[in-house]
Amino acid sequence: MFTPAHGERLSDLCELTTAEPLSRFDDAHAAATLADTEILVTSWGCPRLDSAALERAPRLRAAMHCAGTVKGHLTPDSFERGVRVTSAAAANAVPVAEFTLAMILLANKRALPMSRRYAEVRGFRFWAEEFSNPGNYLKTVGIVGASRIGRRVIELLAPFDLRVLVHDPTLSDPELRALGAEPAALDPLLAAADVVSLHAPALPETRHLLDARRLACLRDGATLINTARGHLIDGEALERELVRGRIDAILDTTEPEILPAESPLYELPNVLLTPHIAGALAGERTRMVDLALDEVERFVRGEPLEHEVRASDWDRIA
Amino acid sequence: MFTPAHGERLSDLCELTTAEPLSRFDDAHAAATLADTEILVTSWGCPRLDSAALERAPRLRAAMHCAGTVKGHLTPDSFERGVRVTSAAAANAVPVAEFTLAMILLANKRALPMSRRYAEVRGFRFWAEEFSNPGNYLKTVGIVGASRIGRRVIELLAPFDLRVLVHDPTLSDPELRALGAEPAALDPLLAAADVVSLHAPALPETRHLLDARRLACLRDGATLINTARGHLIDGEALERELVRGRIDAILDTTEPEILPAESPLYELPNVLLTPHIAGALAGERTRMVDLALDEVERFVRGEPLEHEVRASDWDRIA
Repeated sequence: MFTPAHGERLSDLCELTTAEPLSRFDDAHAAATLADTEILVTSWGCPRLDSAALERAPRLRAAMHCAGTVKGHLTPDSFERGVRVTSAAAANAVPVAEFTLAMILLANKRALPMSRRYAEVRGFRFWAEEFSNPGNYLKTVGIVGASRIGRRVIELLAPFDLRVLVHDPTLSDPELRALGAEPAALDPLLAAADVVSLHAPALPETRHLLDARRLACLRDGATLINTARGHLIDGEALERELVRGRIDAILDTTEPEILPAESPLYELPNVLLTPHIAGALAGERTRMVDLALDEVERFVRGEPLEHEVRASDWDRIA
Repeated sequence: MFTPAHGERLSDLCELTTAEPLSRFDDAHAAATLADTEILVTSWGCPRLDSAALERAPRLRAAMHCAGTVKGHLTPDSFERGVRVTSAAAANAVPVAEFTLAMILLANKRALPMSRRYAEVRGFRFWAEEFSNPGNYLKTVGIVGASRIGRRVIELLAPFDLRVLVHDPTLSDPELRALGAEPAALDPLLAAADVVSLHAPALPETRHLLDARRLACLRDGATLINTARGHLIDGEALERELVRGRIDAILDTTEPEILPAESPLYELPNVLLTPHIAGALAGERTRMVDLALDEVERFVRGEPLEHEVRASDWDRIA
């Protein structure tokens, strides 16, 4: 993720306390490095910034994380010690929202099921009749969760002739309307949408947010898109609906993260399974480092941070 | 395509000379109808408006076509007789551009090949390493043909961090730049792009525009998208490249329109074949009727038409 240009930018902004990234916080090199460190730039695979690590970093004032989720990476101890924390979730939201937009447009068009069917029949069909009302004209898209990703998806949907509903119990109706979508309660949203896309955080209270009853609310032929976490859906209930062929699904995340080899979802014609690739991959991760270094620059200059995670956010973020 | 609301709108604007659509121009009912008709609203499956039909319609002043291509539907005789002609190509461009946008985003992400590979391995892989630099960050998209569809694709690509090249020999570089893309000659465009999308008309001079030599210009791992016409590509040369696995393709149109059942393209993992469905399907066709009736309304009110096809356009449209 870190290019030579990123390294140069960082060394222009700060004095580097180590030439190579730390891969652990509990050895002698780490102890010597952390003793002087005021800003940590962290990412995937970084050791956990827990109270023991913080003890070794008495001068630490900020931790800029080059990835989305900070919860697995640090503990609330950072906030208690006054260490400011930033997340690159906003940069990771970009590719997820792009993937989701593409999938919404293809789901409404029924393009992937048509492609599969075409390879079977290898002949002419009245495709618009074989698949119920395919296309992106005046279809309804339901966004569950006005997270960074959900908001970006709503923005990206603006150029299309689609009705966009949004459900998010943490925001008021005027706040949701300001995002450019119609507020809706979850059950009516599920019942109205041609495509439902999940962008809610994986919290204890969102576990199986789409349980068997809610999955049954989806219209026949609707497409459910999950680029968030498998945690949000009752996987057994979803499998039943998919095996019946009542709905379609585009699943970038499942529970477990990699489905068992015997899962029928790998081969169902109404399911597209991708291996958790909607988020930043390869060059897309550059955006997250850019964002973290922008935050380092703001911090060094005493400017307000733009992507700070605060103690008060802890319970509503994933 | 014609809803009752469209019928009401039309009868508010004009006196209808027939209650039911004409399915032929050469019977007694047609003769009686055409004798009085000043405006024809036509669409797919309509009989050809040739000189014989025009002879029967001495009062005809305008033909509003609710579909994209007028060439198969009328002859230059209409222009000679001063019959004004409009096309709904602009409305048909919308769904094609949307389909193309979705496919460009997925092609850069390598989402569909990854999905296929995931179903094979059913386990964890370093996906970003198994597929060369997947993602939509700073990739290059090449648009061949600044047609209505090509222009709309360029507009829709604006929110993304992509470099967009465009080739169109009928426009100057400043005109192409004004569309929001970088002008490029065809060969360098093919060599530079991660994804190439064809939006050129099917004319004698564009037959096999992408011949074996030009296909060989495409980068290893590039994706070629064709939502225009199979006519534009040497199908045998393309098949060779695809069977070798050197490039990927997303083909909504081929030559012949439906590939022979023995074509390897139906099963190649690097090919997505769709059965010519990118254009307006089902409810999406409503846009074309709306556009044609907008033109009827302008004509009746003596306002300038917005989607007129002129005699001078004949040689450069498909």
